[in-house]
Amino acid sequence: MTQANDPTLQSWVDVPEGSDFPIQNLPFGVYKMKDRSPRLASAIGDYVIDLFVLAKHGFFDDLDIDRKVFRQQYLNDFMALGRAKTGAVRNRLADILDTDLENWDASELKDFFLVPMSEVEMCLPVKVGDYTDFYSSIEHATNLGCLFRDPENALLPNWRHIPVGYHGRASSIIVSGTDIHRPKGQQMPAGADAPVFGPCKLLDFELEVAFVTCKPTNLGENVTTANAEDHIFGLALFNDWSARDIQKWEYVPLGPFLGKNFASTISPWIVTLDALEPFRVPGPVQEPAVLPYLQYEGTRNIDLKLSVEIVPEDGQGKVVSESNFKYMYWNMAQQLAHHTVNGCNLNVGDVYASGTISGKEKGSYGSMLEITWRGTEPVDMPDGSQRKFINDGDTVVMKGYCEKDGVRIGFGEASGKILPAT
Amino acid sequence: MTQANDPTLQSWVDVPEGSDFPIQNLPFGVYKMKDRSPRLASAIGDYVIDLFVLAKHGFFDDLDIDRKVFRQQYLNDFMALGRAKTGAVRNRLADILDTDLENWDASELKDFFLVPMSEVEMCLPVKVGDYTDFYSSIEHATNLGCLFRDPENALLPNWRHIPVGYHGRASSIIVSGTDIHRPKGQQMPAGADAPVFGPCKLLDFELEVAFVTCKPTNLGENVTTANAEDHIFGLALFNDWSARDIQKWEYVPLGPFLGKNFASTISPWIVTLDALEPFRVPGPVQEPAVLPYLQYEGTRNIDLKLSVEIVPEDGQGKVVSESNFKYMYWNMAQQLAHHTVNGCNLNVGDVYASGTISGKEKGSYGSMLEITWRGTEPVDMPDGSQRKFINDGDTVVMKGYCEKDGVRIGFGEASGKILPAT
Repeated sequence: MTQANDPTLQSWVDVPEGSDFPIQNLPFGVYKMKDRSPRLASAIGDYVIDLFVLAKHGFFDDLDIDRKVFRQQYLNDFMALGRAKTGAVRNRLADILDTDLENWDASELKDFFLVPMSEVEMCLPVKVGDYTDFYSSIEHATNLGCLFRDPENALLPNWRHIPVGYHGRASSIIVSGTDIHRPKGQQMPAGADAPVFGPCKLLDFELEVAFVTCKPTNLGENVTTANAEDHIFGLALFNDWSARDIQKWEYVPLGPFLGKNFASTISPWIVTLDALEPFRVPGPVQEPAVLPYLQYEGTRNIDLKLSVEIVPEDGQGKVVSESNFKYMYWNMAQQLAHHTVNGCNLNVGDVYASGTISGKEKGSYGSMLEITWRGTEPVDMPDGSQRKFINDGDTVVMKGYCEKDGVRIGFGEASGKILPAT
Repeated sequence: MTQANDPTLQSWVDVPEGSDFPIQNLPFGVYKMKDRSPRLASAIGDYVIDLFVLAKHGFFDDLDIDRKVFRQQYLNDFMALGRAKTGAVRNRLADILDTDLENWDASELKDFFLVPMSEVEMCLPVKVGDYTDFYSSIEHATNLGCLFRDPENALLPNWRHIPVGYHGRASSIIVSGTDIHRPKGQQMPAGADAPVFGPCKLLDFELEVAFVTCKPTNLGENVTTANAEDHIFGLALFNDWSARDIQKWEYVPLGPFLGKNFASTISPWIVTLDALEPFRVPGPVQEPAVLPYLQYEGTRNIDLKLSVEIVPEDGQGKVVSESNFKYMYWNMAQQLAHHTVNGCNLNVGDVYASGTISGKEKGSYGSMLEITWRGTEPVDMPDGSQRKFINDGDTVVMKGYCEKDGVRIGFGEASGKILPAT
């Protein structure tokens, strides 16, 4: 069988130079066309691949999958088939799209199962069960410690021992392209003795990567770092929008709430962990040594280049951050092992975000709070304006890709435009 | 039409003295019998009322409800019918069960739709969307401030301005009667310079009341205090189990996580807001005045007596707390108005818990942390043993009821037994 990761594969479908979606990627998502119910899809070049059409024509018959799985609003039932089976679907797609049409000649059907991306609407890919947000970039945690506490003791005592995380709001996770009204809420102005109510003044993004789970556990069960990846279907870009002024006033002692839960933007394509296999790299050395349940073997970080661009309304955009998922201090296997060490159960479709991904230099910070150092060093935009935080009319576009041996696995984008407060 | 709240109603079904389930209650839940799929139910006396049987026999036909709604695993689709329609079902039940069999003689069918509670298993009543836990008892917040910070400034600056809340884990909400293994996790022993891993040593309960939503909102929409109750289907007892040692080490700066998400116990019957109407009482005066979006009219608190009993394995129980939901500083309408003021969207089946409900006196505190004042004043048990926190083998039983004009509306119980760590 064709292995989709083979870097020598070429598709008979045209894949433009620099495309996020070569035959080696084959991510999964859900798309919609006018007057038709949503269907599961993959992507190649500038085309969406309609998986339901392929299923109807028998291309997955030997894999023993109910065809209905491919005509659904969400990926959940597909993901729940498990990584072996969904991996086989991905390899089958590579077989179908491979120029060496040995086994599966689908080219005659191409007008039926290949749909130009420009003609479709991408949907929220998963029905989110629970959503957890981690805080796993040491550079980000250190920056925040410097900004809000003591630069000499920037990291809190628990940080190097625990992949710190908290529960976020699942209902307000939205797919890329969905506009967001600037949130309103309570803020405590400096020097005031009572809070005021109004639109957020310090609206920020957080550059994150999220993973989605495909295998549930029972209450009381623990996932180990060794088997954690059996539970991980794939990854997406994630913007954990943050209203800094609302957050600052509300978050002690129980953590972020309205400062975060007005919206989080996820990219529509879930890039499988399988596709990311060639891009594994070692993570940072963890000092002091972590407790045994957090120790792991193998290379668990992923060299995934990330960027954030701010695009003003009718204006020229500016890339304000170039970071990398490989900087993560705590990896995904450690996050899941920690999350379940007390017996907390997982469901298919849970979303686990990394926390803001900052690198060591200013140009690689993952939030405006850090990039502008709390507003003291504004960003100059091409149109001459400045940004301390995000303005009404701005679109924030996150992109990401892995690249090696001439293969470029892209993530599409997670973008969202800020509309004025209602 | 019969109004279920009429205190003069009597049922032809025997309702024992002190029962939680007179004809004026008629809560909703989901039950299961061996070899049969779950069905929606109400309760009267010692019987479960099978709503699907009544639906099949046409008792709800004029209400225009798809019968399939009554043969489901969760209440969600039923709740989504809206309060007018579900209220009509409750009034119809009162009509059917009323001794004055004017309109609906169902007594011949009683062997079909009345099932002894002892023969059924009660299920988790709702498929939980998001779960939010508030922190709305001023007595509880003050106690914690005294215990962990400064008794002179026990309340944090935001507390009287914001119904403080945080997101909890939806996946680990379990129905009363489900055993729980003592969670394991990281703890930082006093004076140590590195955390240790092991079973929680300070396992606690939190006495709470939760409400369930029945009407969704769109992202960007705000619920007002005036229309908040349109979104509230009913209430249940809720035990927000807490591992104090795990919580203490992990919770700064992003709030509770593994110290809470190993399990939360909810009672199986959702008592409707309709049934609780007669028990409304004014809430505490809020000083200073709250911001306009949190102001409200009417009486929004509920006089709901609550108790917590610790029952050791094979031993005699002891009631360690008698509290009341009426003590809440922030009411449910304020909680929902706050939760959505930034545009955060609601779904049917979301669970919103009150936070620990403590009264002014020690006997009314809602957690062992407060009752034993951080373990310094242990509770004496009937068997001569003492409790600072919860032992393996202990069952914690929460009960609650409203009483007025000879009518007693009970909540059943939220109970859970602690098994040793795995």
